[in-house]
Amino acid sequence: MNLPSSYPASPRSRVRRLPKRGSQERALIYEILDAHFLCHIGYVIDGQPYVTPTGYWRHGDSLYWHGSAASRMLRSQAAGIPVCLTVTLLDGLVMARSGFHHSVNYRSVMAYGQARKIEQPDEKQAAVEAYIERLYPGRNAGLRPINRQELKATTVLGMAIEEASAKVRTGPPVDDDPDYDLPIWAGVIPVRQIVGAAVPDRRLKNGTARPAHLASYGEGAVLDEVLSRNAKAGG
Amino acid sequence: MNLPSSYPASPRSRVRRLPKRGSQERALIYEILDAHFLCHIGYVIDGQPYVTPTGYWRHGDSLYWHGSAASRMLRSQAAGIPVCLTVTLLDGLVMARSGFHHSVNYRSVMAYGQARKIEQPDEKQAAVEAYIERLYPGRNAGLRPINRQELKATTVLGMAIEEASAKVRTGPPVDDDPDYDLPIWAGVIPVRQIVGAAVPDRRLKNGTARPAHLASYGEGAVLDEVLSRNAKAGG
Repeated sequence: MNLPSSYPASPRSRVRRLPKRGSQERALIYEILDAHFLCHIGYVIDGQPYVTPTGYWRHGDSLYWHGSAASRMLRSQAAGIPVCLTVTLLDGLVMARSGFHHSVNYRSVMAYGQARKIEQPDEKQAAVEAYIERLYPGRNAGLRPINRQELKATTVLGMAIEEASAKVRTGPPVDDDPDYDLPIWAGVIPVRQIVGAAVPDRRLKNGTARPAHLASYGEGAVLDEVLSRNAKAGG
Repeated sequence: MNLPSSYPASPRSRVRRLPKRGSQERALIYEILDAHFLCHIGYVIDGQPYVTPTGYWRHGDSLYWHGSAASRMLRSQAAGIPVCLTVTLLDGLVMARSGFHHSVNYRSVMAYGQARKIEQPDEKQAAVEAYIERLYPGRNAGLRPINRQELKATTVLGMAIEEASAKVRTGPPVDDDPDYDLPIWAGVIPVRQIVGAAVPDRRLKNGTARPAHLASYGEGAVLDEVLSRNAKAGG
């Protein structure tokens, strides 16, 4: 399937503020989506908005997430309601010479679509395994396989991305011209999500080997870099 | 004002899944809210949910956020609509012996209320300064002061927390009993938001001193620890 290189700019997804930071470009949107696995999903029940942090993954032009079949969020979403799935990576604190120009460096995507429930057990199993694989390439092969009760207790939802927009801010503070003459400290404090040393479970069976996919999560690794590499390797 | 030690458990905020991880306890909710400054705000326009990443801060039992007066999000919210403000801290990836028991360590809060616009210029200015001060204690005193146009171009919103719930997962994977006998690697990969070396603006005036509040953001500092200390110091 050939997809247009940009999502449509509709009233819903058009980036209104500071358009130089905004984009509907598909490649950039995928890049940001592939750099994390934790999103915030917004949905509406009886007019009340809910925002739930959820693990997600991208496959082609669709996004997937899952959870317990008993979850209120997933039961509501399974009915096919509109959702907004937002992914945000914090990259730095931007300190300017005036309070007004303080800012944040970040990459974010807001993606819109209709949640739909994956019903077929095969498709469900493939989806759940895709999530594990996206986080830990090669891991599924070594796991105790999922059983029927577990599959039944799991709800998998997906949505085709109808519209999406990215917003990115990078670089130094942008101050008012006269303010550059003031002796006020300004700059950027970078922030990254860093992986610590893996903690083996205390009940690990003697002689259990560390799997190859743990290597990419070495102490000090940058989480979004690991996830981006995994996404590229997975095609 | 004496507040009850817990928020009410309503159908909206009651934690339905895995209640051992959920809580309406006010102290825990404040602790999580004070450990970050970036939230995801959910709101509804014409039935469509939106989730926007936004800087926020807590003062007493209220949450505040701000942005451009031209922002669609803020203009909509200023009308007094219901919002859900969610804060999530990712603490680790939890790898189990079966795909089903893979999980994530995290701390999150979902807070519900009605957005209201701060109209009084004095209150608005105090709020904006409180945000800077919460991030960088003592910084306002050294900044070029905010001017009337900037104040006018800024919208500040706040909400009293009507209801809120926290969800926390910590610790090792929890596997099915028979699975502990399998030679499968299981454990936790910790993840933290880490501060990098501050990058001074290239246009910094010669001889500009590094302010004291930069010290707490030393290279390698853990962002949520810095923010939690700031919140405690600020009362």
